[in-house]
Amino acid sequence: MLAGDRVALARIISKIERRNLETQSLVELLYPHTGKAQIWGITGPPGAGKSTLVDRMIFNLRAQGSAVAVVAIDPSSPFSGGAILGDRIRMQQHAGDAGVYIRSLGTRGHHGGLSHSTKEVVFALDAAKFDVILVETAGVGQTELEILKLAHSVVVALVPESGDSIQVMKAGLMEIADVFVVNKSDRPEADKLVRELTQMVGLGAHDASTWMIPVCKTEAVKDVGIDPLVKEIQKHQNYLISSGKRKEKEKSFLKEELLDILTEELLRSLDLALKTQSGNEVLMQLQEKKMSPYEAARLIAGK
Amino acid sequence: MLAGDRVALARIISKIERRNLETQSLVELLYPHTGKAQIWGITGPPGAGKSTLVDRMIFNLRAQGSAVAVVAIDPSSPFSGGAILGDRIRMQQHAGDAGVYIRSLGTRGHHGGLSHSTKEVVFALDAAKFDVILVETAGVGQTELEILKLAHSVVVALVPESGDSIQVMKAGLMEIADVFVVNKSDRPEADKLVRELTQMVGLGAHDASTWMIPVCKTEAVKDVGIDPLVKEIQKHQNYLISSGKRKEKEKSFLKEELLDILTEELLRSLDLALKTQSGNEVLMQLQEKKMSPYEAARLIAGK
Repeated sequence: MLAGDRVALARIISKIERRNLETQSLVELLYPHTGKAQIWGITGPPGAGKSTLVDRMIFNLRAQGSAVAVVAIDPSSPFSGGAILGDRIRMQQHAGDAGVYIRSLGTRGHHGGLSHSTKEVVFALDAAKFDVILVETAGVGQTELEILKLAHSVVVALVPESGDSIQVMKAGLMEIADVFVVNKSDRPEADKLVRELTQMVGLGAHDASTWMIPVCKTEAVKDVGIDPLVKEIQKHQNYLISSGKRKEKEKSFLKEELLDILTEELLRSLDLALKTQSGNEVLMQLQEKKMSPYEAARLIAGK
Repeated sequence: MLAGDRVALARIISKIERRNLETQSLVELLYPHTGKAQIWGITGPPGAGKSTLVDRMIFNLRAQGSAVAVVAIDPSSPFSGGAILGDRIRMQQHAGDAGVYIRSLGTRGHHGGLSHSTKEVVFALDAAKFDVILVETAGVGQTELEILKLAHSVVVALVPESGDSIQVMKAGLMEIADVFVVNKSDRPEADKLVRELTQMVGLGAHDASTWMIPVCKTEAVKDVGIDPLVKEIQKHQNYLISSGKRKEKEKSFLKEELLDILTEELLRSLDLALKTQSGNEVLMQLQEKKMSPYEAARLIAGK
């Protein structure tokens, strides 16, 4: 995989997704080779045209000579399914280009959300020497908060129709976005949304040393505005390095990774404990209200 | 609170949401008084009319003499915000009726999703002697999977417009729903959706001892179809008791509660460990790739 074998990469990613002891030894081997890639997150409401944006960005980055990997997070909601299928179609556009790799990750059933597998898949892509790793998530539920735990730069994609709901989500968006992009900018109300966002950004506290969130306009289907967008994200990446913030972010990502590892282990050992006779007795006493959940937890943890 | 004081209840719920040591001692006191309420979950895509449905169900249950509490989960997505405001308006309809209690819970920032606080708030409402606790969640991200961890009966609300997307979400919906409801059933395509759902339900394996998911039709704004819907949910509750499945469900809810308690404690102790000098050194070595995350986790956990 380190030598550029894409079949090996695909196999390793599948093993990481499997979450067993092999996952652990793979990550231990991979980890020393990580740390070079830029990780860009793209989020936004369903219908903002994120997939098309990502496709255009791939072409732009390829023209610059960068190797690009895409991780598309499928929130696997029964109300939003279907991402995986779309991905196969997307991959075909870049078929035969070894400098592009696209992978969908399902999140269903993972306790604690998407972050753990995704983070370790990003380790693998980083070790496989991709220059830019694009992590694309649908902005539903809390997945768009998860992206803060692994992306260096977060792009929030909106469409003119999002305008009405901007009022209620201002605080949340400012917290997430490093770059705003108004896609489908040929539509009416696009300029209004751009103005609102620009105003909102201007209200935030800032001086020469803080990052001023840019507001970009794109028409991804027509390949309009992609180059300026990519340049803004690259500026943000440079800002992170020159300000020392990249190191800070990496530190907080690593804390999250530790937490995820420990939580996963906890889950495994709790499962084991509940299968023993004494674990089962604790559960019965709990069910009969002879013990509170906190007492039971203390007993099971052996404290 | 046990004597019916609603101000005390509100205060206790706020304390449970605060997630500190007091939360723990409150839950220990409350827990022996729980286990009587029926917990109904309502989920569905945004725009399915869940709030109106819940309001009508409250009136129906009140007419039967049941005390009803509603927990509305606000997924706090920056792309979907605004639930709390709506709730204040809803509460006014039932103002002065001590047999109704409505509370919104925000989920933002809770590692591991909404389940922990919600579950313990449900303990409080159960101890406060509400007969039915309705937990309403927007079906975005994974929140609709979380509801399986705390509701005895899950109602999935859909609208005729959902029809097109049914194909991709079949498996997921069948896994969640105990009762389907097609709301806004005066709209065109409503009957088609009812037919599709009925067919889908019929395809599932079933015999006399399994629950056959009913498909109800409602026009909540006109109060049409609410009584049959409530009756179907009550039938499901009876089925859970007669089949012994209520006890099974409660057991799995308790396992989740244990996991949540232990995860919360883990998070707290990891935070503490990383603040010590040795914790900080581990983090630095990790950042310099001199140690893998799994090694670091083992060191921090003292193993």
